[in-house]
Amino acid sequence: MCPHANGDAIPNGKHEMIGVENTISNGINGHSANGQSINGRTAQKRNPYAPRASDFLNNVSNFKIIESTLREGEQFANAFFDTKTKIAIAKALDAFGVEYLELTSPAASEQSRLDCEAICRLGLKAKILTHIRCHMDDARIAVETGVDGVDVVIGTSSFLREFSHGKDMTYITKTAIEVIQFVKSKGIEVRFSTEDSFRSDLVDLLSIYQTVDKIGVNRVGIADTVGCANPRQVYELIRTLRGVVGCDIEVHLHNDTGMAIANAYTALEAGATHIDTSVLGIGERVGITPLGGLVSCLYAANPEYVKSKYNLPMLREIENLVAEAVEVNVPFCNPVTGYCAFTHKAGIHAKAILNNPSTYEILKPEDFGLTRYVSIGHRLTGWNAVKSRVEQLGLELTDEQIKDATAKIKELADVRTQSMDDVDSLLRVYHSGIQSGELAVGQKEALDRLLAQHQYPKFGVKPMKPVDATDI
Amino acid sequence: MCPHANGDAIPNGKHEMIGVENTISNGINGHSANGQSINGRTAQKRNPYAPRASDFLNNVSNFKIIESTLREGEQFANAFFDTKTKIAIAKALDAFGVEYLELTSPAASEQSRLDCEAICRLGLKAKILTHIRCHMDDARIAVETGVDGVDVVIGTSSFLREFSHGKDMTYITKTAIEVIQFVKSKGIEVRFSTEDSFRSDLVDLLSIYQTVDKIGVNRVGIADTVGCANPRQVYELIRTLRGVVGCDIEVHLHNDTGMAIANAYTALEAGATHIDTSVLGIGERVGITPLGGLVSCLYAANPEYVKSKYNLPMLREIENLVAEAVEVNVPFCNPVTGYCAFTHKAGIHAKAILNNPSTYEILKPEDFGLTRYVSIGHRLTGWNAVKSRVEQLGLELTDEQIKDATAKIKELADVRTQSMDDVDSLLRVYHSGIQSGELAVGQKEALDRLLAQHQYPKFGVKPMKPVDATDI
Repeated sequence: MCPHANGDAIPNGKHEMIGVENTISNGINGHSANGQSINGRTAQKRNPYAPRASDFLNNVSNFKIIESTLREGEQFANAFFDTKTKIAIAKALDAFGVEYLELTSPAASEQSRLDCEAICRLGLKAKILTHIRCHMDDARIAVETGVDGVDVVIGTSSFLREFSHGKDMTYITKTAIEVIQFVKSKGIEVRFSTEDSFRSDLVDLLSIYQTVDKIGVNRVGIADTVGCANPRQVYELIRTLRGVVGCDIEVHLHNDTGMAIANAYTALEAGATHIDTSVLGIGERVGITPLGGLVSCLYAANPEYVKSKYNLPMLREIENLVAEAVEVNVPFCNPVTGYCAFTHKAGIHAKAILNNPSTYEILKPEDFGLTRYVSIGHRLTGWNAVKSRVEQLGLELTDEQIKDATAKIKELADVRTQSMDDVDSLLRVYHSGIQSGELAVGQKEALDRLLAQHQYPKFGVKPMKPVDATDI
Repeated sequence: MCPHANGDAIPNGKHEMIGVENTISNGINGHSANGQSINGRTAQKRNPYAPRASDFLNNVSNFKIIESTLREGEQFANAFFDTKTKIAIAKALDAFGVEYLELTSPAASEQSRLDCEAICRLGLKAKILTHIRCHMDDARIAVETGVDGVDVVIGTSSFLREFSHGKDMTYITKTAIEVIQFVKSKGIEVRFSTEDSFRSDLVDLLSIYQTVDKIGVNRVGIADTVGCANPRQVYELIRTLRGVVGCDIEVHLHNDTGMAIANAYTALEAGATHIDTSVLGIGERVGITPLGGLVSCLYAANPEYVKSKYNLPMLREIENLVAEAVEVNVPFCNPVTGYCAFTHKAGIHAKAILNNPSTYEILKPEDFGLTRYVSIGHRLTGWNAVKSRVEQLGLELTDEQIKDATAKIKELADVRTQSMDDVDSLLRVYHSGIQSGELAVGQKEALDRLLAQHQYPKFGVKPMKPVDATDI
């Protein structure tokens, strides 16, 4: 699965179905990921849990994004997009490279209709879709806006059939056929989706999808409207559906339990072709699969799945644009663009990262226009990380001296985390002390005196001794 | 999968392996989820993608949480927990009901050691663990702190073996045995985990786990240290390992691509017994499986999996405590406690939610001490949602009148989202107009005049007409 360890697991057109030949013809085989041959035998390079080239259902390398920030995203509690903002978001997403933009139904309000027409006139590369209820009134308005396609939806779960629209499956099927044939007659794409698919009767679902497939719908949609699905359920349902219809399969996954990214990835593995996303995942309640999250998990599977199709360094800018428009913060834990996504802290992590970033990074920050940061001024720091900083500062210290300085950093950081400036000052004081002969390894008092002389930041305040917690 | 639709899929001790008998013996069978019998035939209540009672590997109903906010969480870039904060977090998590607390290695710093001892002395119900490198020096310090167990870790991927500690598998195995036997000799629990397990050689992995299982380790750990794994890989690896060892299996999953919750859920399906979490997922980079997210996906599978074990209404308080300590905001999209997790906006959603919350909610807010909110002052609103508000306000209006008032709300909201106060004022003005005979359905000018008279908030400013986007 990881791009570094599994170069041979990447599907390529030629050998897609022939796993064995793949391992023979692959030029880099016979070496471990780092080029070593262990114990004289051919090193195991293949991760047995990596995707199989022979998994012919798998679409992780071949899918399209239906970006729904301007539809699902408008259903986010905080969202109110004026025309100018909608156009800015549409243009940014088009520049990023998403294949489709989905817009709020023109039947929702007069302004929604005008905005839909306006975005259609922008001449974007992305295809423009609008999202309507399965109803001829809505369909008639939608096809007049200039969209490239219409996404039709109706609830099929017993919950929605009873408590929302009150229609039975015969009525739903009849209406679906009428709407689909009408939209198709206008020469544009049409998708038919159920709502709350994971709580709908499977036979009902497959039956209606087979029917609409036969009359030539472009895509069918599976929607986890309430966010109840888990990855193995998604895999099973999409795999089953893949055997029933010949058309494309779109998935729309809510994130109520935080599984929308994984569910989307698994849907692609099972043969889905289109994934609905929104920027930062904004939508009803906690929203849907976020664009950045989807891109990150596909990148982790293989950077080539997304690097060639999308302008990855634009991700942060687009997220900031939308975050500002709906007045939220980018979550600190957001994949890729989160506050500390590329900050490394623990001593053993920092040491290894400095040797080779692949040790603790599955995403390369530079591919997203970002940089990594190794944090060293805290009590979990290690001398290898400090050594790297010593070298960056151009100071000459032996390993023994660096270990001694690290002990002091840990002692100070036990009371309060030290900033990079603090650490740099300490290392410079330590270095000058060694140079002048005023300091040697292990002379704790001499070091304290030197730090005080140099007014080491915050050192004027004598560090408290560690707290014995019986006092608390 | 959904608790409402799949009551019969819940494993119960008696019929755990016998799916068929289960459907016969189940008293509530023969009725659909909402109690109806459809078309005279027995309604299909079972979701074919729900977990199978016969899936004997599945531990979603039987697992333990190893809460690592005070270890992994301390590796979050922003984290600096003083003793008092550590104790407050430990007590809160213990009251929530987590089975284990994992603490930073006492070898990390003097204060870390003192804090570890202090937390051990609190006499919490939760077992206390500390997390150390696979090294006798660390083990000797750890066993003296009073912990109930020691979590031992070492990197086994070629990346970590080359760029981190530089040890081969023979050395790793030898050291592991020495450390495990030493910790066991002290009469406390010991776990052995590899680091970066998903990029380690499978045969190496299984071999070392089998070895430590034979010498009586309590748990083995699988760690997705770099966050590269996806759900089906996790399932396969845990399922394979389940067949190789008899001891418990712990998983530690990083969230770099946003899949850590789903991966944890899938690990339980495959037979894992212990899941590592941290509050809000804080940890290295973007962190690990968040406690709240794990609880939410298990709740969605079946509320009983978590309601009886954990004090769910404490979740928000614990998240706020930790968010404050590390100076981050609870993400707007956080499962359960996110800003709008229970806010419903689109007209069709609001209508159905008001009829029956299960239509668009898989989590019951009241089980988490929270409340739902239906938003109606926006252009995606619908008359059914407005009707509910009319009833809450005790106003008497016909459906036709409500539809007329809704059209006005949509018109105003097309320019700017209306607050609940705005909507209430408009409905009251509309109602009094109808009562006094000054207003009838469809009299748009009369309504505008009345609103102006009553100084309807923001109505003094004449709403702009919808923007035709050719102007922009």
